Formats: sequence, C-alpha cells, structure tokens
Amino acid sequence: MKLVLTEEKGDISFIILNNPKNKNALSLDLMNQFQKILDEFKEKNETKVLIIKGNGSSFCAGHDIKELVAKNKNLDYFKNIFYTCTNLMKTIKEMPQIVISQVHGAAYAAGCQLVANCDLAVAGENAKFCTPGVKIGLFCSTPMVPLSRVIGRRNAFEMLFTGRVVYADEAKKIGLINKVVKDDQLDIETEKYALDISQYSKYTLNLGKKAFYEQINMDDFSAYDYAKDVISYNCLSYDAQEGMKAFLDKRKPNFKGK
Amino acid sequence: MKLVLTEEKGDISFIILNNPKNKNALSLDLMNQFQKILDEFKEKNETKVLIIKGNGSSFCAGHDIKELVAKNKNLDYFKNIFYTCTNLMKTIKEMPQIVISQVHGAAYAAGCQLVANCDLAVAGENAKFCTPGVKIGLFCSTPMVPLSRVIGRRNAFEMLFTGRVVYADEAKKIGLINKVVKDDQLDIETEKYALDISQYSKYTLNLGKKAFYEQINMDDFSAYDYAKDVISYNCLSYDAQEGMKAFLDKRKPNFKGK
Amino acid sequence: MKLVLTEEKGDISFIILNNPKNKNALSLDLMNQFQKILDEFKEKNETKVLIIKGNGSSFCAGHDIKELVAKNKNLDYFKNIFYTCTNLMKTIKEMPQIVISQVHGAAYAAGCQLVANCDLAVAGENAKFCTPGVKIGLFCSTPMVPLSRVIGRRNAFEMLFTGRVVYADEAKKIGLINKVVKDDQLDIETEKYALDISQYSKYTLNLGKKAFYEQINMDDFSAYDYAKDVISYNCLSYDAQEGMKAFLDKRKPNFKGK
Repeated sequence: MKLVLTEEKGDISFIILNNPKNKNALSLDLMNQFQKILDEFKEKNETKVLIIKGNGSSFCAGHDIKELVAKNKNLDYFKNIFYTCTNLMKTIKEMPQIVISQVHGAAYAAGCQLVANCDLAVAGENAKFCTPGVKIGLFCSTPMVPLSRVIGRRNAFEMLFTGRVVYADEAKKIGLINKVVKDDQLDIETEKYALDISQYSKYTLNLGKKAFYEQINMDDFSAYDYAKDVISYNCLSYDAQEGMKAFLDKRKPNFKGK
Repeated sequence: MKLVLTEEKGDISFIILNNPKNKNALSLDLMNQFQKILDEFKEKNETKVLIIKGNGSSFCAGHDIKELVAKNKNLDYFKNIFYTCTNLMKTIKEMPQIVISQVHGAAYAAGCQLVANCDLAVAGENAKFCTPGVKIGLFCSTPMVPLSRVIGRRNAFEMLFTGRVVYADEAKKIGLINKVVKDDQLDIETEKYALDISQYSKYTLNLGKKAFYEQINMDDFSAYDYAKDVISYNCLSYDAQEGMKAFLDKRKPNFKGK
Repeated sequence: MKLVLTEEKGDISFIILNNPKNKNALSLDLMNQFQKILDEFKEKNETKVLIIKGNGSSFCAGHDIKELVAKNKNLDYFKNIFYTCTNLMKTIKEMPQIVISQVHGAAYAAGCQLVANCDLAVAGENAKFCTPGVKIGLFCSTPMVPLSRVIGRRNAFEMLFTGRVVYADEAKKIGLINKVVKDDQLDIETEKYALDISQYSKYTLNLGKKAFYEQINMDDFSAYDYAKDVISYNCLSYDAQEGMKAFLDKRKPNFKGK
C-alpha cells in the first residue's frame, strides 16, 4: 500500500502522507516510503519547491504508538525507528528543494517536528500543534530539536513540558509557521506561496538553502566569512548576471538554473 | 534569620525569597541560603516542580548594592559575589526539577536574570522587568546571558543598554515570561500551571529537562544525533511503556518515575 | 565627492549616507569612505552613540547593482566588493560605540543587512525592509547572517526566499527593529533614543557592547563564566562605584568614563 503519494505540477511537487485512518502517523513503513521519495527528489533535483501535506483529517499525528509498545522490543528496535525518523528530517534540510509543510488538523509530536523541521510552513486556521509526549512518559526529545531552534526557548520549553495545544494564530505569533489561511483556502494559498518561490532561479534557491543551514550554527564572524565567499561565487553565475541585467533593464529575467 | 523559606505541597515545592525590607535583594547571605536549599532539592530529587517566588512588594531587586560599594573591596570580594550568583543560576539549570519563576512587582537586574534563567515564568499583570545596571555604571553582564538567549538579540540589547522597564504584557510578547495573570490570581494560577506539569512522570520530566539544555547549544545535526538516542532509551523505560499503553487503552497512566 | 557625511552633537554622532540619486547604494566608493569614517570613530573612541542614516528618499538600497554587472569581472573583483562590505559590518560590531540605524524608506538587501547588523534600529512608519536578491539570482547570503540571528529562522527564511517586503510594524513585531515612530518624528525620536543611552558611562557602554557580542556565540555556561568575570572587574571601576554610591544617595552620578 502506498502510504506516501507524490504529485508533480511544473516546478512544484507534492508529497502526500496517505494513511488517513492512522492520522498519517509516522510508522516505520510510512517513513521508509517517505525517505525513498525524498531521496529521489534530492537525487533528481528537478522540482524547485516541495509541499508536504497529509490526506484525511490531520497532517500527522506523530509516531505510530502501536509500533512502540508491542512486546519484546529492545533498544535496537527503538533506535531503528528514531534513527529512521531523524534521517528523514536531516534529508529535508539537506535536499536542494525548498520544503513547505502544509498543515491542517493535528500536527502532533513528530508531526509537529516535521513542521518545525521544514523550511517554511503554511497552516489552515484550525490547525493545531502539540508536543504531548511528556503526557505519556515519552518526552518529545527529537521534536525538541527543531522546535527549540524555531520558536525560541521559552515557547519550546512550555510546549514540551506542558504538552498543551497551540492553535494556528499563536503558532504564527511564535514563529512556528509562516502563514495562516482559511481552511478552505489552504491548498490554493500554499500553492501560491510555493509558486512565488518557484519562479526564481533553481541555482539560486539551491545555493541559498545550502548556505542558510551551513551558516546558521556558526558564530557571527565565521558565518560572515563563509557567506562573503558564497555571494562572491554566486555573483559569477549566469543567473545572477542575467538577473541583475534584467533588473537594470526592467525586464523579466530568463534564468537557466546555473 | 531565614532569608529563604521553603514549603512543600505534594509534588510541588516553593522557594520563597524572604527579605522584603530589602526587596529580596540577592545579598551574599541570601544567595548562600538559596544555594543550600537548591542543592538539597537537587540531591533529594523528590519534588517535581519548584516555584520560586518572593515575599513583600517585589520578586527580587537584584544584587544588594550596599554590599558592592563598601570600602576596601577587591576583585576577590566581587568575584565571590558574582561566582556565587552564577553558581546558583547554573544549579537551577542542572537540577532535575522544573523551575518556575512566579513574578510580582519588580524583577530587576539579577532578579530579571533569575526569571530569564528559570525554565518557565508566570507573572502578575503589574510585574516589571528591567536590567538597569547600565544606569549606575555596572553593566548587567551576567543577566545578559540568559536574557539574550531567551528574548533574542534585539530586545536584549535594548533592555541592557537603555535600562528601560518592560511590563508584563510586553514581557510575554518578547518571550521573557510564559504567562500573564491577574495579580490577585498569581499564586493560584502559578500553582495550577505547576500542577499540570507535576502530574507527569518524574523520570520523563527529569530526562526532558536534562536533554533540553544539553541539546540547546549544539548544532542542528549533533542535537538530532543526541536526541535520537535520548528518545530511544526513553522508549525502553517503564513510564514510557506504561504511558503509551494507557494512551492506547484510553486510561490514565500509572507512572512509577522510572 | 563625499558619499558619506558626519555630524557631531555632544556624545552622539551621525553618519549620513549621501548618495540620494543612487538610493545610498553601497558602491565600492561609498563603502570605502564609510569604512574610513568608522575606523576613525573606532580609533578616537570619543562619541558614545552613532546614528547611521541616509539622505534622500531611502535609507539604503543595497549593493550597487551596476558595479556587479559590468563586463570582464572576475572572482577577485566580486570578492573585493563583498569583503569590503563584510569588513564594514564587522567593524560596526567591533567598535566601542552603540550604533543605531535610523531607517526611512527602503532598507533593501545589504541595506537591510546594515539595519540587522547595527546594535539597535529605529524606523519611520513607512520604512520597508526586504532581502530581494533571490529575485535577481543573487541570493542575499551576507544579509542572511545578521538577519537570521536577529529575527529568527522562520522569518529570515521567508524574507530570504520570497523576497517579500516587510513594513515597519511587522519589522518591529519580528524583532528586526526596536521602535517605530511617525515619519516626521524620526529624526527627533531617534536622537532622543540615542540621548537616553549617551547619558551613561562610556566605560560601561563600551564594556557592555564588547561583552554582548563576546558571549552571544558561547554555550550557556561558558557565557556565564565569561560574564561573571566581566562584571567582577566592572565592579572595581570608578564609574560602577560612583554609580552605585549615587544610586544609594539618590543623586545623579558623575561618570568619568573609567
């Protein structure tokens, strides 16, 4: 059964979590299919923007709890699940495409992690976010990683230790998502958001995303030293020269992706 | 004289700064009593949540200025004061309990530091926050450490270099505190906030707090590598297995703290 | 031609970008004049607060695109431009003065970088901020460095990859600027803001700024260990002792800048 679907639409592609009965929980099966799809997109590097969304009532309910409680499980079994999930999150950061979460309904635990881990996020007004692991004794340690880096310490600590639900408006305020839209406009608005980005040079988008995550963990001056070289090389590129000439000529640029 | 009091109430304990005449200033005496109490809580590790509050009109006015101006003081004397204070702040981060500041009135200088340094903070609507050291020639260098990490560079720089007062509503907006409540509801609301957390597994809370501060200074991928092991081991624990089973059975879990 | 002007007014000085026809674009000429002025202020260390503003309709439109597209340019040519700009940004962080951006009209690309890179920022209500390099194939890699550190990952990623314009009110909300004022009050309000700071001890301001940027990239406990020494030495200084005595005597302190 296909637990993850894909759709392509010009420069935008969709990855659709497709296990609505299970609220798109990140079972090992689903994660393995998801990983394979991400690897293919990463390898091919054709599409510019990826939108991750979910079928059914919710974006993603987190890990599949049933997989985590069955008898006779050992450390290696759990490691396999969480290493698979971590690898998936890392791949999203490493792949050249700009990855947008499109969130409706619940984004809980590892589902909330997925949102925080994506490059950008758009949500419907009734979307809700939560890291409730603390309530069931399994602290959301992995969701904590992107969450504490995206919404700051105070908000992250509270979400992680109270497990309370954060609705879309607050999620926007604290920086967990970029945009809130009407639920019935979510598909069209997220696509518009992606379209805006997809008109730009693929070369530039790829370079920008790589540079963003490279510099984010550096001290200020090291980041500057890194970035000044990135932009100098960028300036030599066809697309930068074409883009700047088009800007001066007040015409639309013809990017070639190099 | 007891400059710091304690109260225990089930899984919650209170640490009460008790020098109202001096606005609970962090004199060396008060800090030494405070440290001893923190060390005992840390050592015993019984209570789940600690609430730090102050008797009198204010939470805490900062260091005891009178101690810092007396004649014939030398570097070792000052180092003793600020090392003692720093040790106290570090202990709060290292101890297993979730530590909540309950703020009313003034939280100034090292008092503001204490708020920013705690895991969570609840304040009455008339609480006010300030790092005014710049005004008297003694820059709030130590308060700067948690402040700049909790409220971000822009807000921290402004508070530190203007010394201006930030009231509770703004403090909430910029992430200095988690919640603002009516002044006359501050005791009861902070206790409720703590009670929510104290119902969870002590094992999980301890593990979560340790993991939070361990990963917060790592680069993204190192943090993920650390957290994926934490959650894998967590999954093996009695409380996680019990919590997940209870979740699937739709019943309340019976945590054993292991 | 003087592309950068200066004015001195007691403890405050102004650096005025002065190429209105070119929207104060950071041409190599302008940057070299700017750098020389910064170096002089840094060297002399007399003024306490620096306000950077621009003549004409805009604060600063970014790099001079015309300089980046002319024929026969090579990597060394581009490196010279971006290294010059980076050096300028670093100097602003390293110099002892508190540096405030006063923003009106457009602060685009490297102009937006300049705002994010300054210690503080005040803007008129119609000021607008943007990192639009992605649109012309030249990703704003260097502006990304201060931007992602000042407004957080989510907002920075969106500004960098959509190139959308952020107006003053939103810029305040996301922490890009400290204060929004009426356009016709911008000069006077920014000066007031600077005056507040300029009444404090130069010794303390210098020490505070140095300490702020030293500790910001450290892990929490290293930052504490660094800061506890800074404040201990600070306590020995004439201005701290005078400031604290004046505080206890309820009189105005007479700082000597040492």
